[in-house]
Amino acid sequence: MTSPLRLGIAGLGTVGVGVVRIVQKNAELLAARAGRPIEIVAVSARARDKDRGVDLSAYAWEDDPVTLARRDDIDVFIEVMGGHEGPAKDATEAAIASGKDVVSANKALLAIHGQALAEAAEDKGAVIRFEAAVAGGIPVVKALTEGLAANEITRVMGVMNGSCNYILTRMENAGLTYQQVFDEANALGYLEADPELDVGGIDAGHKLALLSAIAFGTQVDFGAVELEGIGSVTIEDIRQAADMGFKIKLLGVAQMTGRGLEQRMSPCLVPDTSPLGQLQGGTNMVVIEGDAVTQIVLRGPGAGEGPTASAVMGDVMDIARGLRVSTFGQPARKLRKARAARAAIPAPYYLRMHLIDKPGALAKVAHALGEAGISIDRMRQYDHSATEAPVLIVTHKTTRTALDEAIASFAATGVVAGEPVAIRIEAV
Amino acid sequence: MTSPLRLGIAGLGTVGVGVVRIVQKNAELLAARAGRPIEIVAVSARARDKDRGVDLSAYAWEDDPVTLARRDDIDVFIEVMGGHEGPAKDATEAAIASGKDVVSANKALLAIHGQALAEAAEDKGAVIRFEAAVAGGIPVVKALTEGLAANEITRVMGVMNGSCNYILTRMENAGLTYQQVFDEANALGYLEADPELDVGGIDAGHKLALLSAIAFGTQVDFGAVELEGIGSVTIEDIRQAADMGFKIKLLGVAQMTGRGLEQRMSPCLVPDTSPLGQLQGGTNMVVIEGDAVTQIVLRGPGAGEGPTASAVMGDVMDIARGLRVSTFGQPARKLRKARAARAAIPAPYYLRMHLIDKPGALAKVAHALGEAGISIDRMRQYDHSATEAPVLIVTHKTTRTALDEAIASFAATGVVAGEPVAIRIEAV
Repeated sequence: MTSPLRLGIAGLGTVGVGVVRIVQKNAELLAARAGRPIEIVAVSARARDKDRGVDLSAYAWEDDPVTLARRDDIDVFIEVMGGHEGPAKDATEAAIASGKDVVSANKALLAIHGQALAEAAEDKGAVIRFEAAVAGGIPVVKALTEGLAANEITRVMGVMNGSCNYILTRMENAGLTYQQVFDEANALGYLEADPELDVGGIDAGHKLALLSAIAFGTQVDFGAVELEGIGSVTIEDIRQAADMGFKIKLLGVAQMTGRGLEQRMSPCLVPDTSPLGQLQGGTNMVVIEGDAVTQIVLRGPGAGEGPTASAVMGDVMDIARGLRVSTFGQPARKLRKARAARAAIPAPYYLRMHLIDKPGALAKVAHALGEAGISIDRMRQYDHSATEAPVLIVTHKTTRTALDEAIASFAATGVVAGEPVAIRIEAV
Repeated sequence: MTSPLRLGIAGLGTVGVGVVRIVQKNAELLAARAGRPIEIVAVSARARDKDRGVDLSAYAWEDDPVTLARRDDIDVFIEVMGGHEGPAKDATEAAIASGKDVVSANKALLAIHGQALAEAAEDKGAVIRFEAAVAGGIPVVKALTEGLAANEITRVMGVMNGSCNYILTRMENAGLTYQQVFDEANALGYLEADPELDVGGIDAGHKLALLSAIAFGTQVDFGAVELEGIGSVTIEDIRQAADMGFKIKLLGVAQMTGRGLEQRMSPCLVPDTSPLGQLQGGTNMVVIEGDAVTQIVLRGPGAGEGPTASAVMGDVMDIARGLRVSTFGQPARKLRKARAARAAIPAPYYLRMHLIDKPGALAKVAHALGEAGISIDRMRQYDHSATEAPVLIVTHKTTRTALDEAIASFAATGVVAGEPVAIRIEAV
């Protein structure tokens, strides 16, 4: 097979332009490795006249990505527009319906419609690849789908939203509040147009749902991801955690339990000496655990033009070389619907609250925890003001359900001011 | 393709037994992911009667791996015997000659004979895969060959011999000498039968040569790897390095330069806060840098039954799924012969020596460095004994050639006792 592989690119933002740059700059290298030339035939974006810093004059232009997706002269439809409904979905469906292979960086689309799209693609003998949708430049989809294919995967974890990790590490390093760093990051353009996609854990949750499907042979189910953002993490929590040898990360964890598939994306405490704990700034990290391999850690840039385009083009190179694997590593119709297990796996928790300064307050908290079967590993009262005493408790292993019950129970006695904060301590 | 993929396994040591265990334990999972069953048909090892803790009764036995390799009823020949000549080579050649695909964990064989074997395989339409030969369970061959295939690779680095990293970190953590930890590791069975393969950097050099070939599209050339073992690293060096914010690692670095391909496997200083610097014990780490992706770090177990078997079986799963890629990522006959560049890329160096205590000694060292065009970043004299003064110098960027000339020059003046130690400081 030495005929050129012909690409149509829908979306000329950062990633689309990065793809164009790689195809132009590394053309010779790509052809040598693939055994055939890689060519861009047509592109599509909202504004035709915008200067994007790359020469697009050799490519056909389509205003409508759906028309692009249906062109007879492209083999692979590259979707780097984003959005889980509207043009991105329509064009991806159109590409599949006309038998094109699809390379997508669209985590939202795939996390929400991945099962239907994968089934449609397989009916047409087409493949959907989405390395760029998860953890940017890190070839984690490939590692999980192919490299570790002989393993029963026991857990997948990761820091998969660089903006959140940037915010948390900047809070710690500069001693700033969440709101200060959030505003700073927003002003610098580090956050999505809707920042809740980042700080609410939604974007990272999409990625976790995609990895879960591959890892556990289950239908992708973003709706089953327990989501908790980083908005309630305070600089006080970060300092207390550091004091005990932990860092706070927005950590995704997917694990098959006796009660079903547990998928969580939430702030967690991890040991500061662990690879996850040491991760600074916008870098991403994915940890994969399997019965044979034990543990693999993959680290790299989670976003940006070059890294994301590298992942898109890695998928394109696979297709050019004839390396074709099912979207989620198994035929889509063989993927099981997983039962969603919430809070199934016990863990120690970090618990912070402000006790109202009156006799017996602490006893009521301790009593409620004891009643819920939760034992205390360590406790600390600090910075005692006139009316409130900040108290920090680390519990022994418990479930989130039991902990929430205990919190509701002691909160009902009126001894705490504000909302207690509970953060899971994940063994990594 | 739903017919079973039939395996013949040559070698039933740790890795071979690990492969048997995965095939037996995860049979259902493997079949679901590959779309076809994976079956072991025949095995071969030196001693038939040895109890290996796995049930081999369902498999045909061959005393001779060459006979195994030629069996008509196997599709894939798995070579996990080791050794770059003799039965491993004969059997691999026989497998290829009879059109079998080969999955090998044999870094020495491939680093030395890889080019000829790859050409022979391609002539037969067979593939050779060797994920297990490099960095154990880490899917680094796949990441480099496929995931990052769109990148011009600029540098590949790694800690790829767990025994050496164990020795170096144990020296530091326990304050023991090289010889003490070497003896301890040897007694624990952590080292190869010929320990020089580990501590001399040879084993890790084989792995680096394999990664270089993929990264730079060049014929694998182990002979061109500049090798330096860890035997001359002292606890004093480790402590001094730590004091300056560095760790000492046996680090492999491959880089294409204007003067040719530079491949080094030698002790290096790396920042203690970098992922490489933080790597403790027997874990491996590979860092890949490319023009688009910037930098990816892969970390995991570099040896052991499960991890190495995971890598072998990852290759088997690729073959079962019909994912077939050239041995070094390009047709073997298109790989260029690289010119070997030695010491082409300048770096700062750590230099330790014992000066004989007489007037003007230090001046002679400083003069020789200056004559060689080497400027001094910092210098320290410490622990002054009656007759010798240990001196530590960190240079600005220089080439190893210039440094060696300077060392020879001041050594000739008779001012140093013993051999000066020079260790490169690698920017990671």
